[in-house]
Amino acid sequence: MQKLEKICEGKAKILYHTDDPTILIQHFKDSATAFNNVKKATIIDKGILNNYICEAIMNELIRHDIPTHFIKRINDREQLIKKVTIIPLEAIVRNITAGNLAKRLGLEEGIKLIEPIFEIYYKKDELNDPLLNSDHAIKVLKLVTKQQLEIVKNYALKINHILTDFFAKIGINLIDFKLEFGFDEKGQIILADEVSPDGCRLWDQKTLKKLDKDIFRRDLGDLVGAYIEVANRLKIELPDHLINKQSK
Amino acid sequence: MQKLEKICEGKAKILYHTDDPTILIQHFKDSATAFNNVKKATIIDKGILNNYICEAIMNELIRHDIPTHFIKRINDREQLIKKVTIIPLEAIVRNITAGNLAKRLGLEEGIKLIEPIFEIYYKKDELNDPLLNSDHAIKVLKLVTKQQLEIVKNYALKINHILTDFFAKIGINLIDFKLEFGFDEKGQIILADEVSPDGCRLWDQKTLKKLDKDIFRRDLGDLVGAYIEVANRLKIELPDHLINKQSK
Repeated sequence: MQKLEKICEGKAKILYHTDDPTILIQHFKDSATAFNNVKKATIIDKGILNNYICEAIMNELIRHDIPTHFIKRINDREQLIKKVTIIPLEAIVRNITAGNLAKRLGLEEGIKLIEPIFEIYYKKDELNDPLLNSDHAIKVLKLVTKQQLEIVKNYALKINHILTDFFAKIGINLIDFKLEFGFDEKGQIILADEVSPDGCRLWDQKTLKKLDKDIFRRDLGDLVGAYIEVANRLKIELPDHLINKQSK
Repeated sequence: MQKLEKICEGKAKILYHTDDPTILIQHFKDSATAFNNVKKATIIDKGILNNYICEAIMNELIRHDIPTHFIKRINDREQLIKKVTIIPLEAIVRNITAGNLAKRLGLEEGIKLIEPIFEIYYKKDELNDPLLNSDHAIKVLKLVTKQQLEIVKNYALKINHILTDFFAKIGINLIDFKLEFGFDEKGQIILADEVSPDGCRLWDQKTLKKLDKDIFRRDLGDLVGAYIEVANRLKIELPDHLINKQSK
């Protein structure tokens, strides 16, 4: 498979064409951004770690029959993915209060919700990715139909179930996470983008230590060390230079 | 009915006990506030106009079998209402883009929506009344059950239908409006608070002239004149000193 011209570059990833028009290369960069690009940094090796951890998560989801754009990892920073038309929604599932939810609703962080909750945000940097209700998405912005939003929600909740178990087995609580979906060439809705510690909140079950991008957002220390810890607990075979770099 | 001690004073109204524990007096003040109390003013006679217009709207809703807290207007500034336990939600119905919706979603004002949309906001001044989705209201804040939210939504959409007709007959487009609901002594959900040009957007059908609180929010001129115009078109018998005061 030949890597062709760049399609677009986002805050954390670059997409490239390949010689197969239905397949793209997704490249993970080392840049970290937060608060809608107000805080930025380069964090060496973050892209590699997200690529490997995303591979492990996508394979787990595929094993549970979730349709995704993921085909395979092809090198340290890149993976082959199916070309999709992205739905400009961020779908969030939350199990425990944290971040934006806690702040907006005046709640403490760390409160277990009676059941997982589902949110959608409009992917639009210039509007600061506003929260939407279903009427906004369906009737005002017409981003999805009612049935399509129902499919997205059902996948998101099913993925939450799978990943909650997946992380619990390695002593990590899945607090919340972000997903993006797209339409594949047949018009089917499939999981797209990435699932990695950049878009999840992961707290160690015993110490409540954060193992996700909040380390960067809140200046809590060694982000790469934490991501290596997640990868190690998942028994991911990392490239040589990342072995034994887990933070103490 | 005897007016007893004050229960609470809000931005635009005061509630008093009466000698009947199930009945309160709702008093309309002349104060206007906007942007969560950042902009404030006293607008002489606004309270009187809202009291009369609210009476006309509540009677129209009651005529269409909407259960409300409204009993009757007892003087220029006051009405008797049934005591309710307020649900701390602002329910908004929108027919045409304007205000906050247009701003948040990056839309022009004045676009007709394909069908009315429904929103809920958490009534909490210190949080700036954040937008909620149904999961936030039901599962996180536990303000209502799923069934109760469905009742609120159904009433809100039915009220929209009634009031759209009500205002269309006097040459006014109902752009959007805010409602609040409460539980009566039997635990039934009924319409509460007020429905007036303070909480509606009302645009003249021909000139698109605003006849609502946006005149105050956006410094567009004579608020009282506009409210008198609404009252006159509704053939409300205003107190003597307000007759012939409609703005030209």
